[in-house]
Amino acid sequence: MVDNEKADLARLENTLGYTFTNRDLLVQALTHRSKSQHNNERLEFLGDALLETILSDLLFSLRPEANEGDLTRLRANMVRGVTLAKIADDLQLKHYIRVGSGELRTGGYQRDSTLADAVEAIVAAIYLDNNSFDATYAIVEAMYQKYLRELPDASVLKDAKTQLQEYLQSRGEGRPEYELLSISGPDHDKQFVVCCRVGTHESTATASSKKKAEQKAAKTTLALLHEFGM
Amino acid sequence: MVDNEKADLARLENTLGYTFTNRDLLVQALTHRSKSQHNNERLEFLGDALLETILSDLLFSLRPEANEGDLTRLRANMVRGVTLAKIADDLQLKHYIRVGSGELRTGGYQRDSTLADAVEAIVAAIYLDNNSFDATYAIVEAMYQKYLRELPDASVLKDAKTQLQEYLQSRGEGRPEYELLSISGPDHDKQFVVCCRVGTHESTATASSKKKAEQKAAKTTLALLHEFGM
Repeated sequence: MVDNEKADLARLENTLGYTFTNRDLLVQALTHRSKSQHNNERLEFLGDALLETILSDLLFSLRPEANEGDLTRLRANMVRGVTLAKIADDLQLKHYIRVGSGELRTGGYQRDSTLADAVEAIVAAIYLDNNSFDATYAIVEAMYQKYLRELPDASVLKDAKTQLQEYLQSRGEGRPEYELLSISGPDHDKQFVVCCRVGTHESTATASSKKKAEQKAAKTTLALLHEFGM
Repeated sequence: MVDNEKADLARLENTLGYTFTNRDLLVQALTHRSKSQHNNERLEFLGDALLETILSDLLFSLRPEANEGDLTRLRANMVRGVTLAKIADDLQLKHYIRVGSGELRTGGYQRDSTLADAVEAIVAAIYLDNNSFDATYAIVEAMYQKYLRELPDASVLKDAKTQLQEYLQSRGEGRPEYELLSISGPDHDKQFVVCCRVGTHESTATASSKKKAEQKAAKTTLALLHEFGM
């Protein structure tokens, strides 16, 4: 079994490019609530906001022509769990995270959400340790360097309904119509069937919410339109 | 009719406690999208994040014992439209905001959301103008001074379902049960009827979503429990 409490924090500091004055803050940032009352939840609250601001500022400069909607989508992509889990992997956080014995047995310390939360907490720990937004900014920028280099085009982050609407608009076509055809199943497992209409074409889709079913139907419609070069 | 373009920006700077090096940034922050392509929407994106971080940091220090959930609720209360509109009023932004002629006729420049967005944009404009997070922090702290003094207890910001659950828990009672009794009405105007059960007591409520109906039923139940001193 892993004994993360003996992990060499100096190595993590080295990867981070930051040496803590008060290393207790780093330990707290690595401590999951299953381990101790003195855990990383409050740090995560602050770190989440810091990440949001730093990424907003970076994207604001990197994409001087992007509108607010595109910037918001790009930021959401950068601060969501999947990206944070990749950063946690870059930092090899699973060797450092401190979880309770139950979580340790079940491999909870490897869960993406636990690792993503720890990344946010570490950002706050750095900020509190050196009391400098600018220094924290530089560390976060370095963490995100490769993800910012591969920054996707904002349009691919648009949801299917928006993509479909813009696709039709660009061809001078009308808006797609969505109709909820039925709701069935017990309360905890409802199924929503939705139909998406574009001209004479209809695609139906089923999902656990109306919103999801509409997105699915829009995606199918979009694929069909592309396939037939419409 | 108001001619905000002739408004004395030096007076606003005075109220803000900040003098712009590049006053174009302040003008942009005050410009609604109905007025110009060169409007405050991108600034609002950045300012929203800055406000979130600065308030997170302030609350983190002001409430050293608060858990993540309480901090999140307090922050949401501070950065939501209602509080921002109060700040806009403190700054008398309605005299400075620049909207298109249509909005001007209909009084759109007085809309709370328009004014709240401008507050966020001004925060970003200050940050970009002086390139200092710390200076921006000080201005935001001053803006929020009186609202932070009246900071509510985090518990009053809890939603009714959470309040009810904690109330019952503190009395060693079981959890309330919610049941969706019916959904009716056309797609654009659905009505959800939900029942909240606590022991033998039942309260039903109707609203436009299941979530809203549950909150309403929980609120009624809570009021009844308080009334009967249960």
